[in-house]
Amino acid sequence: MAAPDGMFITFEGIDGSGKSTQARLLADRIPDAVLTREPGGSPGAEEIRALLLTGDPARWSAETEILLFTAARRDHLEKTIRPALLAGRTVICDRFADSTRIYQGATRGDLRAAVDRLHDLMIGQEPDLTFIIDMDPVLALERGLARRSGEDRFEEMGLAFQETLRHGFLHLAHDHPERCVVIAGQRPPEEIAAEIAAQVAARMEPV
Amino acid sequence: MAAPDGMFITFEGIDGSGKSTQARLLADRIPDAVLTREPGGSPGAEEIRALLLTGDPARWSAETEILLFTAARRDHLEKTIRPALLAGRTVICDRFADSTRIYQGATRGDLRAAVDRLHDLMIGQEPDLTFIIDMDPVLALERGLARRSGEDRFEEMGLAFQETLRHGFLHLAHDHPERCVVIAGQRPPEEIAAEIAAQVAARMEPV
Repeated sequence: MAAPDGMFITFEGIDGSGKSTQARLLADRIPDAVLTREPGGSPGAEEIRALLLTGDPARWSAETEILLFTAARRDHLEKTIRPALLAGRTVICDRFADSTRIYQGATRGDLRAAVDRLHDLMIGQEPDLTFIIDMDPVLALERGLARRSGEDRFEEMGLAFQETLRHGFLHLAHDHPERCVVIAGQRPPEEIAAEIAAQVAARMEPV
Repeated sequence: MAAPDGMFITFEGIDGSGKSTQARLLADRIPDAVLTREPGGSPGAEEIRALLLTGDPARWSAETEILLFTAARRDHLEKTIRPALLAGRTVICDRFADSTRIYQGATRGDLRAAVDRLHDLMIGQEPDLTFIIDMDPVLALERGLARRSGEDRFEEMGLAFQETLRHGFLHLAHDHPERCVVIAGQRPPEEIAAEIAAQVAARMEPV
């Protein structure tokens, strides 16, 4: 009998919400977990990530950017995520398709339908469980800007934009209660990690 | 009154058919024509082209490759093709979406529908006129291999593959008689160029 597929868990939220920390803390608790992130997560996807996040970002239109994100995601899915899930491993991913949906929804709402159709056509895969780390944008912006990496152009768009993103993620959670769990992010990281671990354990119990 | 949009003319055919030569000869005859090619044709598209055509091509799946070709095409369309057409200039392009359709149809026929849906969703633009330079694959293969560039991996797939492509292009011409003209390619280049110029002149006449 084949082993059951592993669980695919994603972390979403605005920059500075602490989602990357929580993804790592969860991976530390699960033996054999694969921790990955987007954009990137496989050698080919990292090559595409470099096109997107270095140089002048204004050289790509929103449409071209969506196609490049989707190409990177397809490679990441084929080379990293699916092989691990098929081997029965838990995959923990820092950002996935929801980030594209929410960021594009906030910047080019007219493209949101195209983003969804492109996802259905070329990606298909959804997470089993998505943690949305919710955070006051004022606090998140301070934290995010405190560790600028040269890749954080979204953060440069300011507080009003972060508010729009926060509402986008909360709206997404409302629309997909079957997989999304909203986590209050303004607490000590260990307390948040314990809550997340309990949620995952509950979902991993045999039915 | 705004000037009328320019004419968008593409050249398609198997490698070694002489289409690049004919694209150039036509551009030489039309004042103010823009000669371009795919993959590539704009700075951003050339960056994506480098991902596709250098390094180990086996690192990309057919699906990821289609997404990258479409991203490059979107950039080429936005930055090179559409601005020129809007300025009333004739755009002559060596390969366009038909190449993706025919090459993918020949290698991964199961993806042909996805290729068409992706084109409709993210590109939309079709040429006004497409010249399909038809050529005996034995002759084309000799000519193509005679000027290997390190980017001609399609040519390495051999004669049977070239035959499949040739039939793909002829089938496409049959399906789209409103824009496709099949040109017999086994003649002196000047004779072919004169026929193509006459076809273009006829289509540029005011109705």
